[in-house]
Amino acid sequence: MAGRTWMQQGSPITFGLKAAGWLDAIERTSRRLEGALDRASVLQLGGAVGTLASLGPAADRVAEALARSLRLERPVIPWHAYRDRLAELAGALGIAAGMLAKIGRDLSLLAQTEVGEAEEARRAGRGGSSTMPQKHNPVGASVAIAAGLRASGLVATLLAALPNEHERGLGGWQAEWETIPELVVLTAGSARTIADALEGLSVDPDRMRANLAASGGALMAEAVAAALGDRIGRREADQRVRDGVERAARDRRSLADVLAEDEGVSAHLDRHAIERCLSPEQYLGEAVTFIDRVLARWQRT
Amino acid sequence: MAGRTWMQQGSPITFGLKAAGWLDAIERTSRRLEGALDRASVLQLGGAVGTLASLGPAADRVAEALARSLRLERPVIPWHAYRDRLAELAGALGIAAGMLAKIGRDLSLLAQTEVGEAEEARRAGRGGSSTMPQKHNPVGASVAIAAGLRASGLVATLLAALPNEHERGLGGWQAEWETIPELVVLTAGSARTIADALEGLSVDPDRMRANLAASGGALMAEAVAAALGDRIGRREADQRVRDGVERAARDRRSLADVLAEDEGVSAHLDRHAIERCLSPEQYLGEAVTFIDRVLARWQRT
Amino acid sequence: MAGRTWMQQGSPITFGLKAAGWLDAIERTSRRLEGALDRASVLQLGGAVGTLASLGPAADRVAEALARSLRLERPVIPWHAYRDRLAELAGALGIAAGMLAKIGRDLSLLAQTEVGEAEEARRAGRGGSSTMPQKHNPVGASVAIAAGLRASGLVATLLAALPNEHERGLGGWQAEWETIPELVVLTAGSARTIADALEGLSVDPDRMRANLAASGGALMAEAVAAALGDRIGRREADQRVRDGVERAARDRRSLADVLAEDEGVSAHLDRHAIERCLSPEQYLGEAVTFIDRVLARWQRT
Amino acid sequence: MAGRTWMQQGSPITFGLKAAGWLDAIERTSRRLEGALDRASVLQLGGAVGTLASLGPAADRVAEALARSLRLERPVIPWHAYRDRLAELAGALGIAAGMLAKIGRDLSLLAQTEVGEAEEARRAGRGGSSTMPQKHNPVGASVAIAAGLRASGLVATLLAALPNEHERGLGGWQAEWETIPELVVLTAGSARTIADALEGLSVDPDRMRANLAASGGALMAEAVAAALGDRIGRREADQRVRDGVERAARDRRSLADVLAEDEGVSAHLDRHAIERCLSPEQYLGEAVTFIDRVLARWQRT
Repeated sequence: MAGRTWMQQGSPITFGLKAAGWLDAIERTSRRLEGALDRASVLQLGGAVGTLASLGPAADRVAEALARSLRLERPVIPWHAYRDRLAELAGALGIAAGMLAKIGRDLSLLAQTEVGEAEEARRAGRGGSSTMPQKHNPVGASVAIAAGLRASGLVATLLAALPNEHERGLGGWQAEWETIPELVVLTAGSARTIADALEGLSVDPDRMRANLAASGGALMAEAVAAALGDRIGRREADQRVRDGVERAARDRRSLADVLAEDEGVSAHLDRHAIERCLSPEQYLGEAVTFIDRVLARWQRT
Repeated sequence: MAGRTWMQQGSPITFGLKAAGWLDAIERTSRRLEGALDRASVLQLGGAVGTLASLGPAADRVAEALARSLRLERPVIPWHAYRDRLAELAGALGIAAGMLAKIGRDLSLLAQTEVGEAEEARRAGRGGSSTMPQKHNPVGASVAIAAGLRASGLVATLLAALPNEHERGLGGWQAEWETIPELVVLTAGSARTIADALEGLSVDPDRMRANLAASGGALMAEAVAAALGDRIGRREADQRVRDGVERAARDRRSLADVLAEDEGVSAHLDRHAIERCLSPEQYLGEAVTFIDRVLARWQRT
Repeated sequence: MAGRTWMQQGSPITFGLKAAGWLDAIERTSRRLEGALDRASVLQLGGAVGTLASLGPAADRVAEALARSLRLERPVIPWHAYRDRLAELAGALGIAAGMLAKIGRDLSLLAQTEVGEAEEARRAGRGGSSTMPQKHNPVGASVAIAAGLRASGLVATLLAALPNEHERGLGGWQAEWETIPELVVLTAGSARTIADALEGLSVDPDRMRANLAASGGALMAEAVAAALGDRIGRREADQRVRDGVERAARDRRSLADVLAEDEGVSAHLDRHAIERCLSPEQYLGEAVTFIDRVLARWQRT
Repeated sequence: MAGRTWMQQGSPITFGLKAAGWLDAIERTSRRLEGALDRASVLQLGGAVGTLASLGPAADRVAEALARSLRLERPVIPWHAYRDRLAELAGALGIAAGMLAKIGRDLSLLAQTEVGEAEEARRAGRGGSSTMPQKHNPVGASVAIAAGLRASGLVATLLAALPNEHERGLGGWQAEWETIPELVVLTAGSARTIADALEGLSVDPDRMRANLAASGGALMAEAVAAALGDRIGRREADQRVRDGVERAARDRRSLADVLAEDEGVSAHLDRHAIERCLSPEQYLGEAVTFIDRVLARWQRT
């Protein structure tokens, strides 16, 4: 399939590479959430102002027992007015929602009518348009993108709320009460939705191939410029290929035909060599290696 | 000094405990920043679409050499469209700015004319009012609070920018270009400012004592209720002390006098015992222990 | 061209209708900015605490003269700690940036390789890829989308900064100093960029027509369902057309062919009627009326 | 009472002036909300892609009738993908929440134990501390401050969501569904809470006077510098008064005594004149005028 940068076809990738990118992000996101949750799982027991004075000499034993029974770590000092651990957890949730939204955005772009390379499973009562029978809305993608947007604002609130006054804040702390649960629910919902969307995803390799070919080979320009550059220097090769791409687009011809006619090219690469250069399968670089590495690490987790 | 919750005097703490809270937050913040920076220090080299195809068979060696020379870790897969590591770093910066703002807010509250327990160093040309010679503005605090507010919005932008399209995003990625440097500069400036403010801080123990005493002992109510509760049960003790606090406030008398007159109290605690309960020094709980633990961990870092 | 909802082809529109939507948003955005600027152009002169005491009996005349010379309105009361008018202006800038980003997003989607309906002017040294000669990045779109993301975070900062303390805040007010100028510059830059992008836009009607046709008429399903519904009721018509769309997609045939074979359809609409229903030009509704109204209002401004 | 800037006593104001500032902000906020609601009350009816094609020739009449029955204005063009009017309404809500939080912050600062100039009504089961009987938490203030923080993040989400794709967005639009209702409920709740807090507010003029006096007249320094400046020039007057303030603070004497001993002052202002300058009632400037203007405008609304 086409790799796309700035929403334009760049050079070819495989669908596996795209999915490996998603998986890699999910794996990192899970680890980040676990780390943040771990660091946030810390007993808060300080009494009114953080001295535990009202517990008298029993304070230390009470704290110890409570921490044990709640399976929370004991901090070196009570932390009521210091909500940074929760903010870190919120940030990790916000990033998770953002990564899920990234997958959702990719899905929505792949599902466009004109692209059509992948689409979410069609389920009864979901994603159909009430009036347009041909439509199949990428509902999972929309949920994840919306969740990402909402999470970013919720995290901002939690950061702005950090400067709590003295030993227990007024207003900042209270702003967490609904914001953190919302963030958790939102991100969990988005994860569930994207998991469903990916499980039910139907992928269309024919459309991927057709989209690659549609530009008449133009997206392989980098490959042929690289091969030509080995013979005549990169700068001149780039210019010749660039001219060829423009000519091919103007005249609606294939890039191979145009380049084969250019003596500055054909003197160094014959028609066969040009065509090999323009074959997407020949220009996938380390895609397979990267996929393998992502999978290997995933299996270790 | 008074420990304050919801902006009200609660029970006594020591200034050392407050400062230990600040130090603990700084220590945690530093560690969080280091962790995030570490995790973000990862080579990004994928060529146009993340396959490294243009480097041909040399790809792996080039990536290895580049990572070594930049002292960056090699990721399992290129990550141009996955900016979560940078978002985590940004989040850690935002939390740092928030923690510094928390210290700034405490400083500004302590420096209020009516509180006067601590103030930033007076420096020529800084913090003086042009027209009000008695004023000494807590400039460092204002810088840190402003930085915290600004950081929260900048982090929101970076989170909202996460869903980059396909192999290289359009718009989201570009939103980082000025936002991340700004966040770094802002947080570093705030850290410098708070460091200066704390170094030059002048602390007024007399005002701390006077503020503790000003309410006629009311902020020690919890202590006397606890002692009385050991004799007559917590519920009744709370009610008697609550009544005493109200009577003392209404008649502008000291809580000790009022309680000593209440037979329901004096039958169990004599004047001397009441006064001992009302002495802030007797009611600092684990303050010293907590300070020691914070310092011990700080010295290990 | 195809009207697109949820990133899917819905029913046909004209490019003029899309552009009219942009123009309408720009017009509304300009008016909103003017209104907010107007309401924010209010003298702030209150002396230290808002009483103008230091000006003595001359206070009123001084304020009057200053307002006149700065061409600012006089408020009924000094407003240093009340920054809502500036927040409203900031909000209007943020919305402007968001609307420009909406146009940018549309441009980037239209310029996708697989869509190709419009692209920004190709300018020397701008938007070309260093390694991929076929690429032409929608640079204007990326600037506007990035500006929209950044503006949303800056506005959040200004809103979070509103609760200024007493007669002159500490921290909140200072957070405006760099945020408001940044917001102005950012939005102005985005406006300039989108103006350039739209002026230089090259539009490709052939691709628009081709994209409309590519789905074999499926996006006209609503039109034929509406016509059929007049004969056999909407519910049954919808179901028959929905079946036809699916059959056509599965067998890669045109919708007209499939529907003409369905006796439940052909009994009511002959081949000619079906084809007329499936002609996009026949199904543009009020597009022209809406364009005319937008233009008429624009010319009045 | 003391007017306070940067959390420090500046010069005197009256409580009426402070309350007039609150009222002025409320009035402006109400007007802004009404304007935004008005501008947002616009029919959205465009069918699938904004052409109303499915309504056929009846489109215009249907739209007209629907607008009339919903009492909404008809726009010149359908606006599904252009959510700026709703964003403006959201912004107005966010600003309203911010202004209410400003009042809340003032209330919380006035209610501090060491300031004690005003406090929210004590109500059974509200604002009392479970363990500290002397405490009376400013619950209304905390609700309003929390609401302001939450609103700022919610508005950021709505701004970031503006760039909706084509004729109906995917993700951005959906992010509004819970965010806008939440913003409405949050702001309305904050308004109700602040209304209650202000209605039940108990104000303590004695504490206001005592706080003014507590600095030994230092906050009147600007007044005496102004009077002295009329005789010996502002620069020298400022310096002498500044020295006097410092001496008075160092020696814990009243500013009047210190200045009366300074021949550079007493040659121009006798003890009586100095004391008149140091009387807060003499230095309220236009406070009454401003209050009257705010009230007059309020009564007109």
